[in-house]
Amino acid sequence: MEGEPPEIRLSPIGYVRHPYNDDEVKRAMEGVCGEIRIYPRYRDGLRGIEGFSHVFVLAYLHKVTDKQREVLTVRFKRLTMFGFSLEELPEVGVFASDSPHRPNPISLSVVRVMGVRDDAIEVCGLDLFDGTPVIDIKPYTPGRAISPVEVPKWFRDIAEKLEERGGKHRYL
Amino acid sequence: MEGEPPEIRLSPIGYVRHPYNDDEVKRAMEGVCGEIRIYPRYRDGLRGIEGFSHVFVLAYLHKVTDKQREVLTVRFKRLTMFGFSLEELPEVGVFASDSPHRPNPISLSVVRVMGVRDDAIEVCGLDLFDGTPVIDIKPYTPGRAISPVEVPKWFRDIAEKLEERGGKHRYL
Repeated sequence: MEGEPPEIRLSPIGYVRHPYNDDEVKRAMEGVCGEIRIYPRYRDGLRGIEGFSHVFVLAYLHKVTDKQREVLTVRFKRLTMFGFSLEELPEVGVFASDSPHRPNPISLSVVRVMGVRDDAIEVCGLDLFDGTPVIDIKPYTPGRAISPVEVPKWFRDIAEKLEERGGKHRYL
Repeated sequence: MEGEPPEIRLSPIGYVRHPYNDDEVKRAMEGVCGEIRIYPRYRDGLRGIEGFSHVFVLAYLHKVTDKQREVLTVRFKRLTMFGFSLEELPEVGVFASDSPHRPNPISLSVVRVMGVRDDAIEVCGLDLFDGTPVIDIKPYTPGRAISPVEVPKWFRDIAEKLEERGGKHRYL
């Protein structure tokens, strides 16, 4: 695998639907409620999902540009809305962050399941824009809940400041 | 987004390296230890990752065939090695399971970080074959640890039986 890496092709299995515009989603501290609508040919894949309190949603962040896919280090600039100065925000690698700007703009959201229909999952806690293509859904099984987890000092520092200033984890 | 869905193109940022063959990986109850090697052009993305006890690894399961990508419902057949009969194993949708056979064969592994080098992350808990292309790494932040989680009765039933028979969660 040291040679030429393969190109990977995926097709969405569905998409996000909710009534909020992109700015409203960005500002929603706990995310928003909405639906993951599943395309007809994939709906059998939902069987048995009812009863999971949470699922992972893997989505393709379709508004990320090719230029933004070249980004490798970021500051958590969104925290400036909680009064952080740029100097307080360390520059870290995209693999140490949830930045949407990254080589493969695939997001990983943990959402709460509110209901399951034949054609959709109703969820809360969505941090995805309306219309975002969804590529996979996986159950949040107990084995994926790790506790306690350790985080670097730079992360702990901004998490503490953020909490003091009324912010929430999903901004990190 | 009800119209024609976009095609999504991704490129690996690295690959899995360890000395175990595929059968050994399948049988390893806690996963195996190994490395996520990062291609040179993406290595700046690792900055700041040291200190996270766990990371998510998103990988492209390159051995899954086009035919296997058409699978929408599965039984947990691997559990037959713990004495489960096929009748005990419910048929559920791929989105309610971790089956590698699914429309977009992207895996989500939670691994423990043992060390970080310039060119690789040393990890344990890998359930991926040697050579698997990796498409993203994300930090396991406290906000992603959900507790308690609820699971469906069918899942609870097989989890309990599995534990009685000496198996572990990662088989579910």
